[in-house]
Amino acid sequence: MAASVTAALLVIGDEILSGRTKDRNIGYIAEYLAAIGLDLCEVRIVPDVEAEIVAAVNALRSRYTYVFTTGGIGPTHDDITADAIAKAFAVTIDHDPRAVAILKAHYSPGQLNEARMRMARIPEGAELIENPVSKAPGFRLGNVFVMAGVPKIMQAMMDQLGPRLTRGSPMISATVTAYLAEGDLAKPLKEIQDRYPEVTIGSYPFEEAGKFGAHLVLRSRDEEKLAAARRDVLHMVEELKSSGKVKLWS
Amino acid sequence: MAASVTAALLVIGDEILSGRTKDRNIGYIAEYLAAIGLDLCEVRIVPDVEAEIVAAVNALRSRYTYVFTTGGIGPTHDDITADAIAKAFAVTIDHDPRAVAILKAHYSPGQLNEARMRMARIPEGAELIENPVSKAPGFRLGNVFVMAGVPKIMQAMMDQLGPRLTRGSPMISATVTAYLAEGDLAKPLKEIQDRYPEVTIGSYPFEEAGKFGAHLVLRSRDEEKLAAARRDVLHMVEELKSSGKVKLWS
Repeated sequence: MAASVTAALLVIGDEILSGRTKDRNIGYIAEYLAAIGLDLCEVRIVPDVEAEIVAAVNALRSRYTYVFTTGGIGPTHDDITADAIAKAFAVTIDHDPRAVAILKAHYSPGQLNEARMRMARIPEGAELIENPVSKAPGFRLGNVFVMAGVPKIMQAMMDQLGPRLTRGSPMISATVTAYLAEGDLAKPLKEIQDRYPEVTIGSYPFEEAGKFGAHLVLRSRDEEKLAAARRDVLHMVEELKSSGKVKLWS
Repeated sequence: MAASVTAALLVIGDEILSGRTKDRNIGYIAEYLAAIGLDLCEVRIVPDVEAEIVAAVNALRSRYTYVFTTGGIGPTHDDITADAIAKAFAVTIDHDPRAVAILKAHYSPGQLNEARMRMARIPEGAELIENPVSKAPGFRLGNVFVMAGVPKIMQAMMDQLGPRLTRGSPMISATVTAYLAEGDLAKPLKEIQDRYPEVTIGSYPFEEAGKFGAHLVLRSRDEEKLAAARRDVLHMVEELKSSGKVKLWS
């Protein structure tokens, strides 16, 4: 198990950038990767433009352990991800016999037209990712995993991939909810952060039913350090509440 | 009015990458910008790490007309956006008298501690963006607009900015919903796309209650071309449905 395995996600699709479709994959993949100990370090959303996809794939694959992409692997003219990935890796792309066999088993001969056959175009050297929902496969080339954009299909593909990825030490987290203003807890919280460099502490303000507060989220790969930092945060919150100097929201 | 005004969005925050918080700003900003004729060309999500924010801001601001950022302008130690923006532009950053005045009017002297004063740190030469919700301002520096991550505050800031941005010719769109499989309409759809280079046609498959189909979305700045392409798409769908050769889902 590696200490830290990094990942990036590339979301491909005009429909996300135009606001027409609300992305539902980023949050899912972020949670999925966190659960198996991978650090999602960057996400990019780019349009259905070959040069943009090529540039983003190459920027990300050279930098992170894994790159996941979603979108652009269907049968229509705007589905250009497979060709863009081939270009990014400077390899050829053609109808892949394994992918053709999958499509032939799924579609009747009359249905398997030229457009559907496009879904069997796979870059040279790639490994297929099974699609149990609608059959047309995704693929892995090098450290890049190419998945469908339809959430249900992407999730099924992710389930194929998950067990095969190198996992990092799991990141564990703890949340302390403080009904205090961020501005009142910022200084002592920073002091705790400075004492625990192995723990990342984030503060996320919220408002619920007119009450204000902050979720203080502690994340670490070191369980003991996490527990110690959490105790300090809880102690800090109690001290602030009993100080009489700050506004309490509960 | 410019023919095309481009924009990028930079979402800053560990909590989005860890999956803990589901982003609600990307879709909102995408729709907002589309409505005022701006082309959102790229989105990036980066962690609360100064070097990452600096690199992303510099990559995006040199490339697009406008860059919008969300997140990282609160009072806690993980709020480092203002300092990162100053670094990206190689300008100094200090307590800004205008921002200090806003905070002084809002907080009592006992409340306005060092942490809250951090929210008045604004890069040299920036213009403030008013925050009607919780007062601590955002700012504009060059072509970069720095907004809060809390959706309600971001939206209020966007409403300040919207009227002041150079608008592009509005992108207009039309959607044709076809209860046909993408693989059956892909070829004639590509032919229509090839006839109308001024219209971008996207195909987005869906499944609802066991019925399959695709939303065919046409987007253009040319109303007549859009209307003509839409007529051709409607005609294509009718032809396919009456051909007896494809599976109908309604």
